[in-house]
Amino acid sequence: MTRATRYKIGSGFAPFSPCAERFVVGGYRDPMSLEQQIGLATRVEGLRGVGLDYPYQFGDGDIERVRRLLSASGFEFCTLEIGLYPDRKWKLGTFTAPDPGIRREAIEMCKRGLEVAADLGAADVLLWPGQDGFDYPFQVDYDECWRALVEGIGEVAAHRPEVKVAIEYKPKEPRANIFVRNAGTLLYLINSIGLPNVGATIDFGHSLVAGENAAEAAVLLAREGKLFQVHVNDNYRDWDHDLIVGAVSLWETVEFCYWILKSGYEGWYVIDVYPYREDGLAALQQCVRNWEKVLDMAGTLTRTNIAEAMSNADAVSSVRTLWDTLLP
Amino acid sequence: MTRATRYKIGSGFAPFSPCAERFVVGGYRDPMSLEQQIGLATRVEGLRGVGLDYPYQFGDGDIERVRRLLSASGFEFCTLEIGLYPDRKWKLGTFTAPDPGIRREAIEMCKRGLEVAADLGAADVLLWPGQDGFDYPFQVDYDECWRALVEGIGEVAAHRPEVKVAIEYKPKEPRANIFVRNAGTLLYLINSIGLPNVGATIDFGHSLVAGENAAEAAVLLAREGKLFQVHVNDNYRDWDHDLIVGAVSLWETVEFCYWILKSGYEGWYVIDVYPYREDGLAALQQCVRNWEKVLDMAGTLTRTNIAEAMSNADAVSSVRTLWDTLLP
Amino acid sequence: MTRATRYKIGSGFAPFSPCAERFVVGGYRDPMSLEQQIGLATRVEGLRGVGLDYPYQFGDGDIERVRRLLSASGFEFCTLEIGLYPDRKWKLGTFTAPDPGIRREAIEMCKRGLEVAADLGAADVLLWPGQDGFDYPFQVDYDECWRALVEGIGEVAAHRPEVKVAIEYKPKEPRANIFVRNAGTLLYLINSIGLPNVGATIDFGHSLVAGENAAEAAVLLAREGKLFQVHVNDNYRDWDHDLIVGAVSLWETVEFCYWILKSGYEGWYVIDVYPYREDGLAALQQCVRNWEKVLDMAGTLTRTNIAEAMSNADAVSSVRTLWDTLLP
Amino acid sequence: MTRATRYKIGSGFAPFSPCAERFVVGGYRDPMSLEQQIGLATRVEGLRGVGLDYPYQFGDGDIERVRRLLSASGFEFCTLEIGLYPDRKWKLGTFTAPDPGIRREAIEMCKRGLEVAADLGAADVLLWPGQDGFDYPFQVDYDECWRALVEGIGEVAAHRPEVKVAIEYKPKEPRANIFVRNAGTLLYLINSIGLPNVGATIDFGHSLVAGENAAEAAVLLAREGKLFQVHVNDNYRDWDHDLIVGAVSLWETVEFCYWILKSGYEGWYVIDVYPYREDGLAALQQCVRNWEKVLDMAGTLTRTNIAEAMSNADAVSSVRTLWDTLLP
Repeated sequence: MTRATRYKIGSGFAPFSPCAERFVVGGYRDPMSLEQQIGLATRVEGLRGVGLDYPYQFGDGDIERVRRLLSASGFEFCTLEIGLYPDRKWKLGTFTAPDPGIRREAIEMCKRGLEVAADLGAADVLLWPGQDGFDYPFQVDYDECWRALVEGIGEVAAHRPEVKVAIEYKPKEPRANIFVRNAGTLLYLINSIGLPNVGATIDFGHSLVAGENAAEAAVLLAREGKLFQVHVNDNYRDWDHDLIVGAVSLWETVEFCYWILKSGYEGWYVIDVYPYREDGLAALQQCVRNWEKVLDMAGTLTRTNIAEAMSNADAVSSVRTLWDTLLP
Repeated sequence: MTRATRYKIGSGFAPFSPCAERFVVGGYRDPMSLEQQIGLATRVEGLRGVGLDYPYQFGDGDIERVRRLLSASGFEFCTLEIGLYPDRKWKLGTFTAPDPGIRREAIEMCKRGLEVAADLGAADVLLWPGQDGFDYPFQVDYDECWRALVEGIGEVAAHRPEVKVAIEYKPKEPRANIFVRNAGTLLYLINSIGLPNVGATIDFGHSLVAGENAAEAAVLLAREGKLFQVHVNDNYRDWDHDLIVGAVSLWETVEFCYWILKSGYEGWYVIDVYPYREDGLAALQQCVRNWEKVLDMAGTLTRTNIAEAMSNADAVSSVRTLWDTLLP
Repeated sequence: MTRATRYKIGSGFAPFSPCAERFVVGGYRDPMSLEQQIGLATRVEGLRGVGLDYPYQFGDGDIERVRRLLSASGFEFCTLEIGLYPDRKWKLGTFTAPDPGIRREAIEMCKRGLEVAADLGAADVLLWPGQDGFDYPFQVDYDECWRALVEGIGEVAAHRPEVKVAIEYKPKEPRANIFVRNAGTLLYLINSIGLPNVGATIDFGHSLVAGENAAEAAVLLAREGKLFQVHVNDNYRDWDHDLIVGAVSLWETVEFCYWILKSGYEGWYVIDVYPYREDGLAALQQCVRNWEKVLDMAGTLTRTNIAEAMSNADAVSSVRTLWDTLLP
Repeated sequence: MTRATRYKIGSGFAPFSPCAERFVVGGYRDPMSLEQQIGLATRVEGLRGVGLDYPYQFGDGDIERVRRLLSASGFEFCTLEIGLYPDRKWKLGTFTAPDPGIRREAIEMCKRGLEVAADLGAADVLLWPGQDGFDYPFQVDYDECWRALVEGIGEVAAHRPEVKVAIEYKPKEPRANIFVRNAGTLLYLINSIGLPNVGATIDFGHSLVAGENAAEAAVLLAREGKLFQVHVNDNYRDWDHDLIVGAVSLWETVEFCYWILKSGYEGWYVIDVYPYREDGLAALQQCVRNWEKVLDMAGTLTRTNIAEAMSNADAVSSVRTLWDTLLP
């Protein structure tokens, strides 16, 4: 049994989690079991896949349980994220932690994660080294940290060459500065590692916060054959608020989608939102509906003159096409 | 017994708290009792006061306990903060919540907080309506929310005219947008309320994030006799990272201090930092030392020609004076 | 003869000007005469008014010429802007310049501007004190500058109480910091001046750069009866790029319009864009068309349940309404 | 005759130029001849080199004149910048212009620039493709533009393999988005071109605006042997204000210098400031003095325990060292 959906849309379970933050440490809703979360997810029309964090959402003892839950629900396993951030032991970094024991522990956790992903048939492994960074000027030795970052992820990826490793970039949070902060820096990292199974996750909101145009960033990654995974959400460019898809940045969301389609991307679209105060189910459903509509709008644009306008850098013509076509 | 310090410097207990955030919900350190926290605080040289949150750090049943702890430690009670944010029931606002029952509950909690502050001899009451805001375009009725904000805080402040109520502004977090977002907006709010015991808290870091010059913002508040409380910390202007005082923005920290001194401010300087990954005690001690040095540097500048340079808007001269005087 | 248009939409002549900037000091197109500019403007469908700068676009010797041009073209004079920025003599400020002679010169220019506006029947006078600010920490005496700002504009406005003076705020450019930086600060200034003919201009793009929600800012100004003039354009929140209306921030543009309509605003909508590289006529025409459509979309929303969603702070419902209604 | 200075510090002539911008198109001071500008520059103590723009500050007919001026003044020719931005013909780009004739013209201008640089003994050629970018979503074809960018610069650099070509990145201005926006993206470009004489210019202020830590960015470039040229100035992270060195971001300026020294960099430090309202000579002199002091402070830090603190990611210790050592 698989779920019949128009598109390869997946999600993690943040919408069904407490969504605690530093000011409401008890969270905005009560925690649920994995079974409850998957049960809610099955009510989301258009959702085909789920992503889970290893080892923090499920550990080595939960593998058969997860296999059964996925099978029973009909969800595909769109990505296995490795828990590089949720534990305080990673507070000064994982691959770049000052303590070599911590670095080793992170690497071994990741290697094991690749094995689990292969075992469970996850489409890829998501690595977001969000604790690898710094908060202060003069806090870290940039040269040493970058050496460790390249070596550490390289060792992980070499462990299972058949498993795709999709590294996600983000400029800040939880660190005031994260090393892998934008698409260009990530391309530098991927190039330095130099392994075919190492690629990129682009998160629309992270790209906005990184001061990029997300469509351009996706094109750069795709040019190198490294666009492995796509996350969708929204914000005001100031912070990774993880808002409902298209709630703020309509045109850039459509443009992002247009160029991803044009690149020939065949992977997953992973909804990555934090509906702190909203009903999680309603928020996630709205995200799926909006992203489906965005995919349709991007398709519609391919049947207009917008490609010609872009080849002439004719902004007025592009704006006119968008408004005439999509806001009739 | 009181603590002998050079300046009226206080702090809350975030440095001795878990400092949980959305990615590390278990926090970066274990929780402590109030007794343990105060015990640690007594080891900070130069710290004279402490601030506590009512009713979340202590409730109505803890008043005598707090009185004894303060007395035994020698700390003054520099501010009583009212817990307008830590509970999920405030998720859609306190004074501006859509539910009138929640609004009433918030107002009554605040009134009671004013009574407790008076009882315990707190220098003032801190109100930070951080949940009063919105995350999405078209989420709220701005006109109704502002009416409720003015009326709600007005009712609270009128309850105990002898207690100073210091409203703190911040542009965002935990909401993507907070109504009381910058100094000008706060002055508008204070003016709309129109009560003598209602004034402002300026937080250096919040002011940076609000896109202001913090010294100018302090001057505007002081011009109206409304500079009630001052918070110090630092960040990169992008977010309220609550970093160690002066770790990033040296010149603006000194300028902020210079103008506060010049305004004749006689209140508290409250350290407001979140040392997620640092030793809390060491971080707080460094903040106190740095702020003491900033006060000294600001004093030194009054004995230079910098006032004359400013009266001529002569930036080169000001820069030269700063570098020659403070970086010998 | 007047121009038949659906809405009170006006514009200045930046789209027909060289649009020079610091890197292309010769401008992106050749300069034109006022006659040529008005001639082009008459070709813009839907444009009803024009705004002109006194004394830099026309001086005391050009008044009859301007009267004839306006009459012949059918344009209404939607606003007379006073030239507080284009001359290097204002480099350290106008009302707040260190030199009292410069301050006096600025005040007298403004007074004369009010007279000219009354003579020519301009709807109001636009004051944008963009040179009044600072570039460096410790550059200016904030207290003195604010005193001068309040007094200077007060003297100007008192000169002709029947002429509306609409002060425009903006956080930066050409100064790194402008005193009148956001809506709250402007309300503080207006309140300090305390004259009925002194009010506000809100520029959508300036509000975005100020870190505000522009709709909320408009509501605050309108609550005090001070929403005198409205400018429309767009940007990425990072800088006043003066892009084509709705080219980036669709939802917030619609929300801005929705609340302005709801406030009962009956004034002008002034297009304020800088099409450096685009055909000026085409860009301005597209702005007018887009703003007309935004007005229509805002009207459509009043016939949905969105007001109810907002009274419940129900963001998911608002997003659903926007997408279902406006993106069919 | 050469100028005796402690460090290899150079500058362009913006401080002696009108510094026009879009609001003061006539500039803040009168233009000067090259002779006058060099004459003023000779009065700046500590300045050893000058940079000039070809062909806009001097053209093919001025080469012997420039040779004589440099020789007579004793200045070294620290960089020849190629004029990729000042002419309106580049408004839609140089290497990425939609018009192939414009692209060809840009490439040929650059090739000739390399020849001139070699002839005049410039240390390197500076390429800042500031017009290559976009202002609107859906304005350009990212894939085509990037292909053209790589090919165009590649052709230029291959023309004279012995001339170093130092590409400068900046996220915005004059375009709302510039393709070569940050250090990571520039590394991707350099790697795609794949020629040994192609490297990077890092501008401290551009790096701040790009949301990077400038020291880290310099380390990344230096790791690849691509740190060819260094620009110094300052801003508030929001825009390339080109303020006096160290006027805002003291600690990060020192950190930037510390890591550049540590990388073994032996090139020029080019002051790149726009003192719109200041005396150009005084402003430039202050920049040189401040950067000399920054070099000294960075040197001092190498004799502290700060390297050890960084190897432990111990932020409190680093802050303490900075304050104790540099703010005695």
